[in-house]
Amino acid sequence: MIALFTDFGLSGPYTGQVKAVFAEVVPTVPVIDLFADAPAANPRAAAYLLAAYDDVFPAGTIFFAVVDPGVGTARLPVVMLADDRWYVGPDNGLLAIVARRAGTVRVWEITWRPPHLSASFHGRDLFAPAAARLALGEAPPGTERADGLTVKSADWPDDLAEIVYVDHYGNAFTGLRAAKLSPRARLTVGGQSLARARTFGDLPAGTPFWYQNSNGLAELAVSGGRADRTLGIAIGTPVEVAAP
Amino acid sequence: MIALFTDFGLSGPYTGQVKAVFAEVVPTVPVIDLFADAPAANPRAAAYLLAAYDDVFPAGTIFFAVVDPGVGTARLPVVMLADDRWYVGPDNGLLAIVARRAGTVRVWEITWRPPHLSASFHGRDLFAPAAARLALGEAPPGTERADGLTVKSADWPDDLAEIVYVDHYGNAFTGLRAAKLSPRARLTVGGQSLARARTFGDLPAGTPFWYQNSNGLAELAVSGGRADRTLGIAIGTPVEVAAP
Amino acid sequence: MIALFTDFGLSGPYTGQVKAVFAEVVPTVPVIDLFADAPAANPRAAAYLLAAYDDVFPAGTIFFAVVDPGVGTARLPVVMLADDRWYVGPDNGLLAIVARRAGTVRVWEITWRPPHLSASFHGRDLFAPAAARLALGEAPPGTERADGLTVKSADWPDDLAEIVYVDHYGNAFTGLRAAKLSPRARLTVGGQSLARARTFGDLPAGTPFWYQNSNGLAELAVSGGRADRTLGIAIGTPVEVAAP
Repeated sequence: MIALFTDFGLSGPYTGQVKAVFAEVVPTVPVIDLFADAPAANPRAAAYLLAAYDDVFPAGTIFFAVVDPGVGTARLPVVMLADDRWYVGPDNGLLAIVARRAGTVRVWEITWRPPHLSASFHGRDLFAPAAARLALGEAPPGTERADGLTVKSADWPDDLAEIVYVDHYGNAFTGLRAAKLSPRARLTVGGQSLARARTFGDLPAGTPFWYQNSNGLAELAVSGGRADRTLGIAIGTPVEVAAP
Repeated sequence: MIALFTDFGLSGPYTGQVKAVFAEVVPTVPVIDLFADAPAANPRAAAYLLAAYDDVFPAGTIFFAVVDPGVGTARLPVVMLADDRWYVGPDNGLLAIVARRAGTVRVWEITWRPPHLSASFHGRDLFAPAAARLALGEAPPGTERADGLTVKSADWPDDLAEIVYVDHYGNAFTGLRAAKLSPRARLTVGGQSLARARTFGDLPAGTPFWYQNSNGLAELAVSGGRADRTLGIAIGTPVEVAAP
Repeated sequence: MIALFTDFGLSGPYTGQVKAVFAEVVPTVPVIDLFADAPAANPRAAAYLLAAYDDVFPAGTIFFAVVDPGVGTARLPVVMLADDRWYVGPDNGLLAIVARRAGTVRVWEITWRPPHLSASFHGRDLFAPAAARLALGEAPPGTERADGLTVKSADWPDDLAEIVYVDHYGNAFTGLRAAKLSPRARLTVGGQSLARARTFGDLPAGTPFWYQNSNGLAELAVSGGRADRTLGIAIGTPVEVAAP
């Protein structure tokens, strides 16, 4: 299957045009909307989100991963094979955290170019046709790069102590893996120190807390409320970890 | 086909991860987004919405119906066969109105458990795999319950005199079936008494009215305007019926 | 494939019920969401948007094009074949700009009626079954009209000097084809005169400009900002062209 991870937004004609490419080339391959609202123009925050959500997908999944503020500039387009999953996207660090956590990683620079390449929509014109070729079982349309490009060189931390996503309930995902934190660790954000809880049912209404979400990230929530409003937080807000 | 009826929201990674389960197990079965914004954490209002929208789907449709504020607590997971359609979801009353309006109803407690069950996302971990098995033609993964559980015991009214949904035009669906109301019935909401009209073209701009919507519910609208703002209403707002 | 171009909105049960019709009749045909938020109840603005976005779709694509404020009134339902693409929708001018730019155009009045036709949702009850028949390879379910109906008679301009869409980045699409404008043309909107740029990277942050978007329309943007807020514009706002 193909999974879409982008900042194209829920509205507008962007995701639809990408799906039209897949429908033409590989009409029987399922295409899954994972995130259309990944951190906009922020490949660093998006890298931690992608690395937390890719591993519920089966081996062979092809991730169309496009958070690409540099579209139209010199940044390279790449294909990555990390263990048994494929990734297609810009070489701007977006794939770096997936790569770091994988056992084996191979990287190709996409050297193929379409007959018509728009200045602002490489997702449709270049990344989607490249991903469709992988879905056909073809080799990556480019040259393997032993240096790994930015995929292997981004000097970002192993976990990101920032908010990387706010969902429609107002819950805020951090870039921190809960399994790497002490069960008694407190997270401080917006001037408030939050203890860990197992889930929503455990606390009185209005209490902010953090918990391990269903994809392993430390997530901030308010029982019966919205963490984003209560704590005044958004994507990029820093989080402090205090481990007792 | 599989139809999704949830309060997971239009954004976020929730629906995508459920679809990934279906794409892996039953990749050729169409999956339809019916509602992703059913009344949040409100299985009672959602029950009337589901019962109004399921019957345009063909026999054999499997409804993935998850509005589940009790996730992680003791509420049971169930499969229901109501006439010739399947339903998979929590046993919290969400399926009760469908059951009451059906000719024949069978209920199974899902006793199967996945290798890994997260505390907060049974939709992905338990309900989706259970629904996928039905889509494969397998029997419900559990035990038939002659008592019918909550599916047959919720003591909610036959029709709900409340707002159960507000669409993007600002039109407000009630939980009342229009066919059960007198053509001359007036609905009072937010201090205003609304008469019935056939459709939008029949009245001067700015007039609030009610009509039988395309799924049979009594729906409040304002010609050329938004009923939610004009009438100051939202999900849960009570509606009074006055039949002359 | 089938492409959906509607003003049904991103939320609500409208698009899902249309897709259920396709899933029942032609379950293996891909269905693509192109726009669900085309200019609401505004077939004139929507006509220019459709005509700019249809030509990235392959020959044989069937467009389900429904922006239909006259649903329930006397306007006719039509099928159009423009060059090698099909269109199904209301005869209210929505298809007129596609028709004008096509080499060959044929128009059919849909005379078939479903057993049950709701007053407010012809998209589900009439247009979707008609489009599904085309997807099965059947002839249009109606009568060819040599006069072309409104499809060939709308007296709208060749390009529309108005905003026809605002995307989630706040960028505003005009109904003007960039290729028809001088490279030095300035666009005046909301009291500001905008010069052309190649793309976002070319200008200091905060500068409003226009550029040729990836589907050929002149689009207004603000580098590092939102054009809709900066310029105070929305769908329908007029744009003046000054060609030096």
